[in-house]
Amino acid sequence: MSETMQRVALAERPIGAPGDHNFRLETIEIPALCDDDVLVEIEYMSLDPYMRGRMDDAKSYASPVPIGGTMEGGAVGRVIASNSSKFAIGDFAFGQLGWASHGCVPARELRKLDPDLMPITTALGVLGMPGFTGWYGLKEHGRPKNGETLVVAAATGPVGSMVGQIAKTHGLHVVGIAGGIKKCALAVEKFGFDHCLDHKAYEDSRSMKTALQELCPNGIDIYFENVAGKTLDAILPLMNTGARIPICGMISWYNAGALGANAGGETDKLPKMWRSILVKKMSVNGFIISDHWDRYSDFLSDVAPMLSAGQIAYKEDIVVGLKNAPKAFMGLLEGHNFGKLIVKIK
Amino acid sequence: MSETMQRVALAERPIGAPGDHNFRLETIEIPALCDDDVLVEIEYMSLDPYMRGRMDDAKSYASPVPIGGTMEGGAVGRVIASNSSKFAIGDFAFGQLGWASHGCVPARELRKLDPDLMPITTALGVLGMPGFTGWYGLKEHGRPKNGETLVVAAATGPVGSMVGQIAKTHGLHVVGIAGGIKKCALAVEKFGFDHCLDHKAYEDSRSMKTALQELCPNGIDIYFENVAGKTLDAILPLMNTGARIPICGMISWYNAGALGANAGGETDKLPKMWRSILVKKMSVNGFIISDHWDRYSDFLSDVAPMLSAGQIAYKEDIVVGLKNAPKAFMGLLEGHNFGKLIVKIK
Repeated sequence: MSETMQRVALAERPIGAPGDHNFRLETIEIPALCDDDVLVEIEYMSLDPYMRGRMDDAKSYASPVPIGGTMEGGAVGRVIASNSSKFAIGDFAFGQLGWASHGCVPARELRKLDPDLMPITTALGVLGMPGFTGWYGLKEHGRPKNGETLVVAAATGPVGSMVGQIAKTHGLHVVGIAGGIKKCALAVEKFGFDHCLDHKAYEDSRSMKTALQELCPNGIDIYFENVAGKTLDAILPLMNTGARIPICGMISWYNAGALGANAGGETDKLPKMWRSILVKKMSVNGFIISDHWDRYSDFLSDVAPMLSAGQIAYKEDIVVGLKNAPKAFMGLLEGHNFGKLIVKIK
Repeated sequence: MSETMQRVALAERPIGAPGDHNFRLETIEIPALCDDDVLVEIEYMSLDPYMRGRMDDAKSYASPVPIGGTMEGGAVGRVIASNSSKFAIGDFAFGQLGWASHGCVPARELRKLDPDLMPITTALGVLGMPGFTGWYGLKEHGRPKNGETLVVAAATGPVGSMVGQIAKTHGLHVVGIAGGIKKCALAVEKFGFDHCLDHKAYEDSRSMKTALQELCPNGIDIYFENVAGKTLDAILPLMNTGARIPICGMISWYNAGALGANAGGETDKLPKMWRSILVKKMSVNGFIISDHWDRYSDFLSDVAPMLSAGQIAYKEDIVVGLKNAPKAFMGLLEGHNFGKLIVKIK
């Protein structure tokens, strides 16, 4: 067993978009195992937009990564040492193990995976936090009804593709938004969206709105919010009375920093939004999926059989090498990934 | 019986704050009664902030008043002619009779009042649409819990004073906001608010926030939104995780016109609000009370006994003369009223 491990540490906090200088690849000693600790050799780690928030020193729903600390993230791998009766060497497990080659955590923080049931990477995407986010937010706050219209952006990502596919099972008219023709084709052909709008084809929110209006002739009943920015501006005027907006993220504003103060726009859009919420009697709900793990087994019971039966599709974008994680993450914030972004450690 | 009646018509649509030229006092013939129609001689009419919205030619939850049409509004009075078996001459009734001396509507649009039970003016305020708005919005969307903190502005108005008093019955720490020392004293002494902040004492939202923070040492769990503007800015940073914002109005922005486009602010506040909704997992719900008349009897069952028992207080501000309605309404939008604003027709 190797005595050292690699990890990516937060070197300094980014201002705006993160760059190479914000990350540092380090070789450190593998920590000694305490009682109940399990050491996992990571095979795959997840890259997700929420990690941008952890790089800021701002009050949020979770603590920031400290300077010099390991970048946070979910990962899957194989147990190579265990002080717990619950995990044997060779077991596969998922945990918040960080951007690293190895992770050492108490057994209670790990979830065992059966690689014969599903590929272990699915625990990072379609059957993991992102898929669960899409499923929970849609069911709980979207309250989908047959015949309604739903719009979701980042449609080929692991959240958007889950939202769209679950919405289709509820009989909704589902319109995706994605960056580029290739992603739009994937949304329609693989994920079964009725339409997908290429946001790169529209210079401003006004022209995007006009295009969306054609694809949503009955207006929009659910906007599943994960991007904000221009998309939100385009969608707002099309929302129907009684519409719902579950908010799980706002990736287009993340690089604007903790307060979103520089997120653009010369006029004050809040009054317009506030008025829409009132006159359209909308329901806007922020949620953080980590509050809802008690519903995770419901999610698995619902989605895993559909996945096995081929009724739910997924797409992974796998980058090889821990050292390439920072660059892949920077690309994720710009939408360069094509499906759920995963780093294969070696 | 007089053959003519007076009414206030919308002369032209206002740009910004309405002025005298937007209204026209007219004498017209009393319309002939159709089958089932009832003619009411109005004694009191209601003035409410929502009427500002009806003056704009904008898509909203209700149609605008047409140019030359009678200004809309609830009113109470005595039946002086009836083609309906349900109303006899001398009965008291409430209906959307408009800014006028008489109203002629089908019997189904009227609600009979018993003047021996409650003064008929209460049907315009504490037991009418405004009181019902406060009660419903707080119960349904505020979801008050013992020990939580609630803030409501326009605290001595008929909505705010209901919200505060009902919140106290649920064991909340209740902080009002009102304009001026006199109103603040009323909020605390008559309506039982724990504190009331005089917003006129604060130049900007930052200093208001600091003052509110002292009055809300445990943060804010429910902000009942009826004013927006500077108050919203001050409150947002103090909202707790899991907070609720029922929105029934935004009076400080009404004069900015239909789209709120000129509502002030040089930076874009929407990203900040959107982020707060997400990271604080807030629930923001717009509602229009006219959708919920099916709950009105629940409201009366709950509140009327408390009113009779003196456990719920109310304050009316009565202006005399239909011709004074426009000026009183302009004052309402500036907060010049002191309690529920009512016009005694003559």
